[in-house]
Order: sequence, then structure tokens, then C-alpha cells
Amino acid sequence: MPPLTTAANAAATAAIVIIGDEILSGRTRDANLPWLAERLGSLGIPVGEARVVADRTDAIVEAVNTLRARHAYVFTSGGIGPTHDDITTEAVAAAFGVPVVRSPEAQALLEGHYEPGKLNAARLRMADVPQGATLVENPVSKAPGYRMENVFVFAGIPRILQAMFDGIAPTLTGGVPLQTRAVSCAVGEGDLSAGLSAIQADFPDLSLGSYPFVRGTRFGSSVVIRGTDTGRLDAARDAVHAMVHQLGGVPVDEDTAAK
Amino acid sequence: MPPLTTAANAAATAAIVIIGDEILSGRTRDANLPWLAERLGSLGIPVGEARVVADRTDAIVEAVNTLRARHAYVFTSGGIGPTHDDITTEAVAAAFGVPVVRSPEAQALLEGHYEPGKLNAARLRMADVPQGATLVENPVSKAPGYRMENVFVFAGIPRILQAMFDGIAPTLTGGVPLQTRAVSCAVGEGDLSAGLSAIQADFPDLSLGSYPFVRGTRFGSSVVIRGTDTGRLDAARDAVHAMVHQLGGVPVDEDTAAK
Repeated sequence: MPPLTTAANAAATAAIVIIGDEILSGRTRDANLPWLAERLGSLGIPVGEARVVADRTDAIVEAVNTLRARHAYVFTSGGIGPTHDDITTEAVAAAFGVPVVRSPEAQALLEGHYEPGKLNAARLRMADVPQGATLVENPVSKAPGYRMENVFVFAGIPRILQAMFDGIAPTLTGGVPLQTRAVSCAVGEGDLSAGLSAIQADFPDLSLGSYPFVRGTRFGSSVVIRGTDTGRLDAARDAVHAMVHQLGGVPVDEDTAAK
Repeated sequence: MPPLTTAANAAATAAIVIIGDEILSGRTRDANLPWLAERLGSLGIPVGEARVVADRTDAIVEAVNTLRARHAYVFTSGGIGPTHDDITTEAVAAAFGVPVVRSPEAQALLEGHYEPGKLNAARLRMADVPQGATLVENPVSKAPGYRMENVFVFAGIPRILQAMFDGIAPTLTGGVPLQTRAVSCAVGEGDLSAGLSAIQADFPDLSLGSYPFVRGTRFGSSVVIRGTDTGRLDAARDAVHAMVHQLGGVPVDEDTAAK
């Protein structure tokens, strides 16, 4: 579909970097991309691209440096724990060309959290950040995330990542929130195609997508309309309804409130 | 963690390109990366990286061209349907610098599948492929995927993608299948860290990863060991067991049969 050309959305996009061999092996299914994407979309900061990279310094450096130059914000997930395979901080420091330093503020947070004798050398590594980083609060388990310029470095555990995001969300500069209208019907995409193209042409300010689904033995389509203007979105949805009726189908508005 | 240095795994890695605004918006949660990653891993072709890109030609071209030069195989998912937002074929053709052509073989498949009058211009687009492509069978809904050199272009609907993959899997040249041992315990990563580093040093031919988890109010760790030699994997697992016991924990072998 054509990129959205509203100035609000051209202004700020985000990229996500999911770090971890566990995701690439298929053993762990990522939950952070969809969660961040929905939250960022609601703030008017659509996610423009995402990458899943291995626990390897060169892979992380490449992704962070490519994406921070292209997008208003980059969010990384994973690799900031205390074990030997947690190399995100070293990699982000390398990406920015700065050393890793111990943050006294982060160390104080960890000292206040762990019982005496439990804050060993491994856990103290979680107080290390790239020089110049600003800490991001972790209300769940204290070991902080951090921000380097437009790059936010978060934990991989979803409930910690979500708490970190909620803490920094008010600091993000968003655009006009993208809204969605979605209509499903038991009409194949191939029958909708010509009509959809015509509606897209009538609404160049909106983005129309079509997504086939299989439910049991039946195929159907979901038409998703995205944009920032409520009136235009409703008008496009009405046009989709009329098209589906004309094709002998029954349009069903999907609940988009939670999306 | 250090990259696996066994020749078998250095020989063939794969990359995944997930194409679709729906994934980037968070509205649809990708299921294809974890499925492909597990299947490819079992064939000895670990997934080295993955990207999620928008329905935009330049984004698809960049991902396909970068990744096909780096990996033995690339698998794309999504964007080969009949509607205006299905642009994967045009983009893959552009990536290879070839025109899009109509495949008589694919057209015959579609003609055999659709009822008279239903094979309209939009659906016929699904018979278009980059010049030089080899078709990949779609036993579910006939519209084929295809292969261009080392790039496999698959549908986004999981059951169709899975059927397409199963059809071509015997043609892939794999390495020695990567096996996994996983041990979980209610011991924090920070307490495991020193011992894990020592075990990793003793088993440079294996890859050890540590993954914290939260279950209810309890934190714990899963240690995942990967490699190709059963004896070495079992020895490393025994070393992890001994370490966990020494730390006062109870090691639990996770079922890795299904992974």
C-alpha cells in the first residue's frame, strides 16, 4: 500500500530491534514487537521496521546504527542481564563509539534491591551503561534500562519491557495517533481487489490493506483502513461496506478498540 | 554467546523476511518466524537473522538483497495475494533485476482451481512471478509460491506457508541438526553467571544461553545448551545440574523434544 503521507506520520517512526538467539531459534516467541507496535501506534509513532538479531556484537551494532539514523526512535529488547550472553550494552556502546561505564545511580538502585551478599560481580554488570546514557526505571526488578540519544535499551522480559516503556512514554514526541477501521467478510480477496483499488484511489490520505484469513474450512478477508482523520476513516469504511454488499457479502465491523 | 563454530553450522544459515504492515502495526502477531526457525533448526540450518518490513518495494528489495548475499537461504512471508497491497513479487523481481512475467504453469493451476468466471484479473496476478522463478506448490489454495536462486517466496497465511515449506524442505541442503538441552531452576541469573561462564569456557563447541523467567511472583532461569554432539550436550547438561545443586537449587530438565 502507499506510505501514509500525512505530515504527522512522516514526522516520527520507530524501529524495533529484538535481540536474542532464543527468538531466532524459535524456542521463545517474541511478544515485545506486537506490544510495542500497538502502544507506539496509539502515540502516533508507527513502527516502520523491525529486526531480530543474534546475541552477537556485530549484528547488534549494525542494526542499531542503521535504524537510529532512519527513525525517530529505536527500541531494543533483550540482552541486558547479568550473564555472559548479555552483550547488548557492550554492543550499543560500540555502536555509539563510547566506552561502557558503571553508573553510580544504577549501582545504588541494585544495592538497595539485593539482600546483603547477593550483589555479586555478575549482577553489578547490570549497572554498566554506555557513557552518556540516561537510566530508564525498572519498577519490576530494579536493574534499569537506558536511553542513548534516540535509542531506548530495554529488558527482554515482557512485563519489565512494558513497565520501562510506560515510564518513558510521556517523553516521546508523537504524531497524530493512527486510527484503524477493520471490516471482515466471507468474500475472497480476489473478488474484493478491483473495488479496493478504487477505494484506495479515492482515499489517498488513508492506507487500505487486505488480509486473507482461514477460519475452519472457510476463507475470507479483513480490510483494514488506517489514517488519522475520523471522518475520512468512516467514509472509507462506508465505501467498503457498500462494495461488500454489492459483491453479495455481509460486511462485519471488527472491534478495533483494543488494537 | 560465541557463535557456533562447528563447520556444519557455519555452512548454512537462513534469514527470514516477514512482509506486512499488519505485523508492524501489532494487529497481527507473526507465527511464521518461530515455525520456520524450529523447522530449519531441525534441518541443521539455523536462522541467523530476521527482518519485519513494510509493504513497500524499497524495504523489501533492501532486505532481500542484503540477506540473500549473507545466508544460504532466505524465506519471505506475505504479500503474494491478489490485492493492491500485495507487492512482494514486483519487489523480488526488482531485487533480482528481472521483469515480472506470467507463469503459464501457475495460470493453469489457478484455472483448474477456480470456478468458471471467478479467475478475474486480480486473481491472475497470482500467476505472476519474477522471470526465472521456479514454482513452489500450494496444496491449500493453489496460488503458488516460488523460488528465485536461494530466495523462497511464500504466502503469509501460516497453514499455506507451512505446506509450501514442507514441499521444498527435502530440497534444502542442511547441516548437522542442532540439538538442545534446557535446564530450568529457581536460581537467579546473577547467581548462575560465574558458573555458566566457566561451563561455557569448558565447552567452546557448544553455545550456552541463559534466559530469566517470571512465573507468578517467582523469578528463575532457563539455561539452554545448543550443539550438534549428543555426548558433549549431555556432559554440559550434567555440569549445569552440578552447578545448580551447588547453588542450593533444583535443576529441572525441560522437555526439548518438541522444540
